[in-house]
Amino acid sequence: MCDVCGCGDPRKVTLSPHSSLLAGNDEEARHLREHFLACGVTAINLMGSPGSGKTALLEATARALEGRFKLAAVSGDLATSLDAERLARAGIPSAPITTGSACHLDASMVHHALHAAPIEAAASSCDFFFIENVGNLVCPAIYDLGQKANVVVLSVTEGVDKPLKYPVMFSKADLVVLTKTDLLPYLPGVSVSLIADNLARVMPAARLIELSAMTGANVAEFVRWLLAHRPVRSPLA
Amino acid sequence: MCDVCGCGDPRKVTLSPHSSLLAGNDEEARHLREHFLACGVTAINLMGSPGSGKTALLEATARALEGRFKLAAVSGDLATSLDAERLARAGIPSAPITTGSACHLDASMVHHALHAAPIEAAASSCDFFFIENVGNLVCPAIYDLGQKANVVVLSVTEGVDKPLKYPVMFSKADLVVLTKTDLLPYLPGVSVSLIADNLARVMPAARLIELSAMTGANVAEFVRWLLAHRPVRSPLA
Repeated sequence: MCDVCGCGDPRKVTLSPHSSLLAGNDEEARHLREHFLACGVTAINLMGSPGSGKTALLEATARALEGRFKLAAVSGDLATSLDAERLARAGIPSAPITTGSACHLDASMVHHALHAAPIEAAASSCDFFFIENVGNLVCPAIYDLGQKANVVVLSVTEGVDKPLKYPVMFSKADLVVLTKTDLLPYLPGVSVSLIADNLARVMPAARLIELSAMTGANVAEFVRWLLAHRPVRSPLA
Repeated sequence: MCDVCGCGDPRKVTLSPHSSLLAGNDEEARHLREHFLACGVTAINLMGSPGSGKTALLEATARALEGRFKLAAVSGDLATSLDAERLARAGIPSAPITTGSACHLDASMVHHALHAAPIEAAASSCDFFFIENVGNLVCPAIYDLGQKANVVVLSVTEGVDKPLKYPVMFSKADLVVLTKTDLLPYLPGVSVSLIADNLARVMPAARLIELSAMTGANVAEFVRWLLAHRPVRSPLA
């Protein structure tokens, strides 16, 4: 993987049989976090409903960055490697994580994927490493993956009430990206201000960026947010 | 609850401590199924992503039925009773099931809710009982709730690849309702035929009904499907 991790065997982080599931996950997430920090990689855990636009956001981000920063990603899904293939076509070295029936990624899955050939080198030398989680507004929220920040992607087509109905996910978000704003004219009753109001009720310091990955509108603001989360030692931070 | 169930205490169905979680669920689901059958109630497990339009589908169904059949529902969400309130305003007696952090409904939660005041009588005397599951394309698929049929609600805004990426859910569906078709003109690359093709790859006898709950277009076809699932002894069946 890299000199910092150097573990070769991704199962090096062995867990006591008495560790609880989440405690074991936390231990492996700590290992990932140390690795990302030591490599100067900003890792982002990207969560959201199925079809909320997580992959499209990364494609739009790659277009907006025009090669100025190095990106890499893993993409979680129950089946297929469709998203990882889309990201690779967008110029982002990517590996799929197919979970079978699991509804979320855990740190062990991410660690294992980081040792996979398509991204082993890129994951240690990139500026931003995106962990595109399984599409699910519930379970992914409770698994630490060693990320620096949680970004929740919410589409305007999902309606205004999702922050209230899925408070665990939104309360853990460092940023909510509201996608598909190009569809707002066709969605009666949906407005950015109503979503922002509901978000503020579960996310005390709510940070919301609305954009359209399709038109590119406001993707630059997400890019600015990303760049502000680079390590302090970076000359561009 | 009713003469058939008569259990008073919704925890009457006690489980051996050695039962597995799913085996215990199956036991309680069997109890629910017997109850629904004996009461002549057609129970539908309505699943889909957050914001796919499950509640809107039930509102549109109530409008289309114009009081000709009796409906009742429970609505699952991590927090709030917003959906149950919407359904009540649409004339559907409803009770919320707030799951806290759970990502799905299980048979025990449904059983417990059936004994709740707002729907105790309606759930035994209605024609159609809708179990609106927690918005999630993964976990709800594996919990039997005593339903007669699984209906998966998929919005056109979620893209064409969801059947391939969430095959467990779609392979268990008796019907897929494709919602928000009014938005198709604004979604490049999304078509009903592409979604149907992908569905056929995971659902050998795929049954798809596309409709718009907002405009009412084709809701009548869903109503016809519902009526075809009434008990055989019904004069309208």
